[in-house]
Amino acid sequence: MDPSTSAFRLAAMIGTLPDGPAYRNLADTIRLLVVDGRLLDGTRLPSERSLAQAMGLSRTTTTRAYDELRRRGVLHSRQGSGSVLRVPTSSTTASSLIVDPDDPDTIALTFSAPTGPSGLTRAFGAAAEQLPSLLTTSGYLPDGLPALREVIAEGYVAAGLPTDPDQIIVTNGAQGAISLVGRTFGRPGAGLLVEGTSYPHGVESLTGFGYRTTPLPIGEDPWDADAAAAAAPHVEAAYLIPDFHNPTGAVMPVETRLRLAHTLRRHQVLTIVDESMRRLDLAGEGLPASYAAHDPDAIVVDSLSKVLWGGLRIGWIRAPRRHVTALLQSRMRHDLGTAAFDQLVAAEVLRHDQHLFDEAVVRLRRQRAAMVEALAAHLPDWDVPVPPGGPNLWVCLPSRASSRLVAAAAQEGLLLTPGPRFTLGAPSAGERRLRLPCTSAEHVGVEAVQRLSRAWTAVVSGRRCEPTGTRVDLIA
Amino acid sequence: MDPSTSAFRLAAMIGTLPDGPAYRNLADTIRLLVVDGRLLDGTRLPSERSLAQAMGLSRTTTTRAYDELRRRGVLHSRQGSGSVLRVPTSSTTASSLIVDPDDPDTIALTFSAPTGPSGLTRAFGAAAEQLPSLLTTSGYLPDGLPALREVIAEGYVAAGLPTDPDQIIVTNGAQGAISLVGRTFGRPGAGLLVEGTSYPHGVESLTGFGYRTTPLPIGEDPWDADAAAAAAPHVEAAYLIPDFHNPTGAVMPVETRLRLAHTLRRHQVLTIVDESMRRLDLAGEGLPASYAAHDPDAIVVDSLSKVLWGGLRIGWIRAPRRHVTALLQSRMRHDLGTAAFDQLVAAEVLRHDQHLFDEAVVRLRRQRAAMVEALAAHLPDWDVPVPPGGPNLWVCLPSRASSRLVAAAAQEGLLLTPGPRFTLGAPSAGERRLRLPCTSAEHVGVEAVQRLSRAWTAVVSGRRCEPTGTRVDLIA
Repeated sequence: MDPSTSAFRLAAMIGTLPDGPAYRNLADTIRLLVVDGRLLDGTRLPSERSLAQAMGLSRTTTTRAYDELRRRGVLHSRQGSGSVLRVPTSSTTASSLIVDPDDPDTIALTFSAPTGPSGLTRAFGAAAEQLPSLLTTSGYLPDGLPALREVIAEGYVAAGLPTDPDQIIVTNGAQGAISLVGRTFGRPGAGLLVEGTSYPHGVESLTGFGYRTTPLPIGEDPWDADAAAAAAPHVEAAYLIPDFHNPTGAVMPVETRLRLAHTLRRHQVLTIVDESMRRLDLAGEGLPASYAAHDPDAIVVDSLSKVLWGGLRIGWIRAPRRHVTALLQSRMRHDLGTAAFDQLVAAEVLRHDQHLFDEAVVRLRRQRAAMVEALAAHLPDWDVPVPPGGPNLWVCLPSRASSRLVAAAAQEGLLLTPGPRFTLGAPSAGERRLRLPCTSAEHVGVEAVQRLSRAWTAVVSGRRCEPTGTRVDLIA
Repeated sequence: MDPSTSAFRLAAMIGTLPDGPAYRNLADTIRLLVVDGRLLDGTRLPSERSLAQAMGLSRTTTTRAYDELRRRGVLHSRQGSGSVLRVPTSSTTASSLIVDPDDPDTIALTFSAPTGPSGLTRAFGAAAEQLPSLLTTSGYLPDGLPALREVIAEGYVAAGLPTDPDQIIVTNGAQGAISLVGRTFGRPGAGLLVEGTSYPHGVESLTGFGYRTTPLPIGEDPWDADAAAAAAPHVEAAYLIPDFHNPTGAVMPVETRLRLAHTLRRHQVLTIVDESMRRLDLAGEGLPASYAAHDPDAIVVDSLSKVLWGGLRIGWIRAPRRHVTALLQSRMRHDLGTAAFDQLVAAEVLRHDQHLFDEAVVRLRRQRAAMVEALAAHLPDWDVPVPPGGPNLWVCLPSRASSRLVAAAAQEGLLLTPGPRFTLGAPSAGERRLRLPCTSAEHVGVEAVQRLSRAWTAVVSGRRCEPTGTRVDLIA
């Protein structure tokens, strides 16, 4: 097991230490990385000497920092295995994160998923009426409930993408879909083109199966077509979020779609297109045709969780026919299918409750407006671009302090994900950024901004931000 | 991607060819392996020459066999990649397997999961009453619904295993649980001790993350403690099914539990204990204490799918505290949690509907008795041991013909899994065996045996058994 991190990589994650005693700031920063989930439980740290070299610090500083981490129970030395990080088990369960979004005590802006609209109960009721006939089957649905796969396929056909229900595989959310693609096609060392700023669980799901990322440059928009063309001959796969990209909310321009699809197809790059944000068109400006319209070999993943309710774990894959068998065979070794009842519910919603999607957009637009207004009032020196869609704001901080801000916010009862979690291989660029999901009720969002403002004051004033508690990094 | 198979391994899978034209029998047998899912879509075959050498056949024979496979669209030659198997896409979706168990046209004895008892509707109704309050949350439950984790933990406590709800992680069935353990702790080349006869999707889930199996010898019972002791120093993990083992139905004796737990603990072997059959005590003789009673470091996996209904995708892990964080961190990269509503249903069942488990045992006992009786009547020369529990019979055929029997049965509208799928690395031992799940209604089970009898007649008479159709190998 035991993941490890090189001195070079750890130094990049740590970045520039704030002013103050170096050993203590070093220890605090490493603890912060553990609390955030950027350094995983069981990770082997580099030797004190090699970290000192990589960071230009004295050996004494790193030794004292490691001692401090040991004293706090975060670092354990194991015969022959060096120093291994351990997240203390007392408060590690994720339930601490599953807070009621209306609970004023703790506000979790770590995931961007809406609470379920009460209108969902209709579909649950209608599904319950169909339950008795479903109970007369084994309920194993490796590729999904036929009625659900049909209505999903019809959706693509209506959008101009000819699709047969046999091309649809229902999965446990978009995350389950991405993981299945990685499991089926990944192999150690294969190159994976990704946006330089991206959704970490999506990327890590793929790297977990051996892919090595080639991130596009972080710039104005997430897609540098020239860089993609240069990388294309060296990668086997690509993971892209062209529609209301997570976390930036950007939309890939039509001409970029054409260029990327042309280039990547020419090099036979298996492209995974994450469309799970596509329904969240807040500006109402519409979207270009699906990326898959330009690349019939692309694998599209989508989900209802981000739009309707996180508790409805229904995602899917739309795959070219020639990949369907391999995906299903691989799936059997992984899970035997998605919850049958939830599939009935999803089919009901897609068939009869389109208004729920419209209402979700209206609600999210209102919630985001409230947060944007509160940010302008309380944090006027922050740059808050408002993207055309998606559930997030991707704000620009006046200085590189995202991780310290997140630690300070936790002390105010506000849980956030630090910017560097989203900027692959460029943690320092991420320190200038913060993702703010807008999926909480308006009064909660406004309260969150007030806490954020207090936390920012603490950071700017140079107060020491001691990481509190430990948690699993649920980012959605 | 592209899995491949060595000439040696393929020769072992093919075994002894039946009488008749060698090239055609070779092609038929390879097609059979593709139909069964033993050779996966996209697998690269060895060269014609190396297969000829490995099997002691002429080069002409293997060349003609490969030509025949190409003619039938099963084999494709790709520049630089050799010959790659392709399951024709026309009929590859698994829906063909999701047959109504009461449908007399096709009977699927490929999975051993019951239809849902109508009594389950009570729990669905009670869960629906709790839905509105669940909808006010994001519904993301990475470790599971607290109410469900509590009732699961109470079950272990009542059975004498002290367990805190924080040690429980709810997963997508037992398969999702095994896959999560593999994903968290697997690494390329790590040794995995397994029973020589085992549940293939469980084992393959783990080998998919890099584990290499060390199977125990296939013998009287699945657990040779001396062989386990010899293997223990060379493996990092073990996957065991001690209670109503799948597929044999055997129970690991208490003294074997003690010896294995002692040996494996001493060598710090991470032991995964699959207890998903534990509730299916058909003989009513009771079971020894859980294997985990002797190895507090063991990871237990369990599920409601095998006992109550395949459509309820609720499984779980009971983990030692020190592994919980690593499992949850790994899970986030894989899926963001199990369907929230199903978890409400499962909590209701475990809290209030224990009678459903008793009824499931009574029903299965009746179904199995009907099949045993029909086998005695129609196939009197078969050896049909009746195990103390579990949903399967693991019958012994009079000759090594399991794969041919499965092909012949498909022509009778009876879907089965060939014995070699369950005998890891010893396909020829599996050719003498057949797993017969007893989870179908009595009249269906009896009809299945009648078809089986006709198929057996065809095999014994030496009629050529042409594989028909193609399918995904769903084994549960």
